[in-house]
Amino acid sequence: MPTFTATFLKTHVARLLVALETPDDLAELVADTLVGANLAGHDSHGVGLVPEYAQLIRAGRLKPAARASVEAATGMLATLAVDGASGWGPPAAFLATDQTIARAQQFGVAAAVVRRCQHIGRVGQYVERIAAQQLIGIVTCNSSSGVVPFGGRQRMLGTNPIAIAVPRQAGHAPVLFDGSTSVVAGNKLRVLVEKGLPTPEGWIVDRSGQATTDPDSFFTGGGLLPLGGHKGYGLGVMVELLAGLLSGASAAFLPDFAGGNGVLVMAIRPDAFMPLQTYLEQVEAACAALKGSPSRDATCSVLLPGEPEQIARRERAANGIPMSEAAWQLLHNLSESLGVAVT
Amino acid sequence: MPTFTATFLKTHVARLLVALETPDDLAELVADTLVGANLAGHDSHGVGLVPEYAQLIRAGRLKPAARASVEAATGMLATLAVDGASGWGPPAAFLATDQTIARAQQFGVAAAVVRRCQHIGRVGQYVERIAAQQLIGIVTCNSSSGVVPFGGRQRMLGTNPIAIAVPRQAGHAPVLFDGSTSVVAGNKLRVLVEKGLPTPEGWIVDRSGQATTDPDSFFTGGGLLPLGGHKGYGLGVMVELLAGLLSGASAAFLPDFAGGNGVLVMAIRPDAFMPLQTYLEQVEAACAALKGSPSRDATCSVLLPGEPEQIARRERAANGIPMSEAAWQLLHNLSESLGVAVT
Repeated sequence: MPTFTATFLKTHVARLLVALETPDDLAELVADTLVGANLAGHDSHGVGLVPEYAQLIRAGRLKPAARASVEAATGMLATLAVDGASGWGPPAAFLATDQTIARAQQFGVAAAVVRRCQHIGRVGQYVERIAAQQLIGIVTCNSSSGVVPFGGRQRMLGTNPIAIAVPRQAGHAPVLFDGSTSVVAGNKLRVLVEKGLPTPEGWIVDRSGQATTDPDSFFTGGGLLPLGGHKGYGLGVMVELLAGLLSGASAAFLPDFAGGNGVLVMAIRPDAFMPLQTYLEQVEAACAALKGSPSRDATCSVLLPGEPEQIARRERAANGIPMSEAAWQLLHNLSESLGVAVT
Repeated sequence: MPTFTATFLKTHVARLLVALETPDDLAELVADTLVGANLAGHDSHGVGLVPEYAQLIRAGRLKPAARASVEAATGMLATLAVDGASGWGPPAAFLATDQTIARAQQFGVAAAVVRRCQHIGRVGQYVERIAAQQLIGIVTCNSSSGVVPFGGRQRMLGTNPIAIAVPRQAGHAPVLFDGSTSVVAGNKLRVLVEKGLPTPEGWIVDRSGQATTDPDSFFTGGGLLPLGGHKGYGLGVMVELLAGLLSGASAAFLPDFAGGNGVLVMAIRPDAFMPLQTYLEQVEAACAALKGSPSRDATCSVLLPGEPEQIARRERAANGIPMSEAAWQLLHNLSESLGVAVT
């Protein structure tokens, strides 16, 4: 499998994005977030998405030079709305994140939505940004229909991830939950198709609603199953009503949904409720207790949420980012078509 | 199975609570919330809990005459903390809910914690209260250890429910998600023990970490499994860090956790982001689309989150609330010991 350094991928992807008429600063930011997903082990949200983004740009659905802005007329004291202007998702979602941080600093809690927002990538990166300011972050978004309702057989809900991060003491990455409300994120299926592997049982149904382990079935009218049956369905619906409808993006399964993500960002100041140092000490005590709890199996130990990402970061920073031949070929073809040399 | 009217149960339970030295107004409120859980079909959170509450009172852990108050010295503009004073949980959590509603009306979003809080019962009731004011409600709480970590074998996390409600147009109950982050709530196991039934596969492990379907194993040192493996584990951990630590209740698995619930309440004004009527119309469109989507099985249809509760309410309002012989016997014994006639 071809393997690349993060530096090479960032530089190359930024060049591709500039060739796609993205301003330099936005290209660098988007390339950085994509490679950041690869480094965190989430190849489903990494640089392999660039050929899809190129298609969105060519179809006029992603405006590469558009810039997000805070809507002046919307919002109350502790809330705001960001207009993504159908441009790149990450700069829009980071704008909402930074504004939410500022308002939470002032009011104790704050919330923002992002509308007309294209794909924001790995949701965990926004709550990590909030936790880096020693606030608690909660970000959720809807996305194009891919998940069947509990008891249903037609794709309705997006995979609708929820991400939550809690700050830790200096020197520690935050405790991070970042998971879809489906059994698995849709992009993970693409990775299996590329590798020619079946899905585990209980991930997907085919277009007639029957259980299957063929990941191709998902791309020919099938659907993902919600996490844990009715619970994942319920959470997924709430994400549609909160992040989808509240942002103005609409619900994934309604006719006016234009793709991309409807986004809700929230931040909470721990020191609105207790001294920050007390909170951080208690978080450390909780982390130590969880990691010290006995494992079911002598070959592994109990991990904190977010630790798999940290392990991947260490490993990939040292050894590079592997990419499937198929994914690299698509990126290579795009580079050729844009006249960007692979150096 | 003995069956009772809601009116009888409310009156009788309120008398029991008064006999346990609860002031009349608090007794009526708590009785009402317990019977409300039975009416919603959640017997695990209903009047069957009264004998346990009586034990907590006798052990000095629940102070029946204590009254919750808003902490004057804590909180920022859009946040507050309620001191539950180790009294009844529902009045404390309703106080936090009402204060959160008031601040969200002013700032667009608000958050409260409740500390020194006993068991708050069915979490859904608090977000229903928020949605009745046409706000979006999010409430989560931790609870005593019952759930093993993903990859672990020792009870650490509480079942840690998350409840979210979204308002609908007049005449409709809100869309309501209310679910634990474990495969199932611990109190559901008690119901199975009473009925002498096994659990489904994949709910629990015994004290040695082995899979079992004997619900008694849970009560002799076993543990519940988290919802969907690592995802339910991750969500459950975040609830400990948010509702548990932020409230000051501590995490379920740390030595200073005193039982009851650490609670986080949040409310969001939809009209901070768009006109309320527009939002409510879109929620109706989403509900209609979900309910109209084809079912997997001709014998059932796709339900909205919260519909099972509404169906139970209609059925039980008409036909009464059934209670197992064992649960009724415990309540009957408590009544006798308190000298409260069953009339």
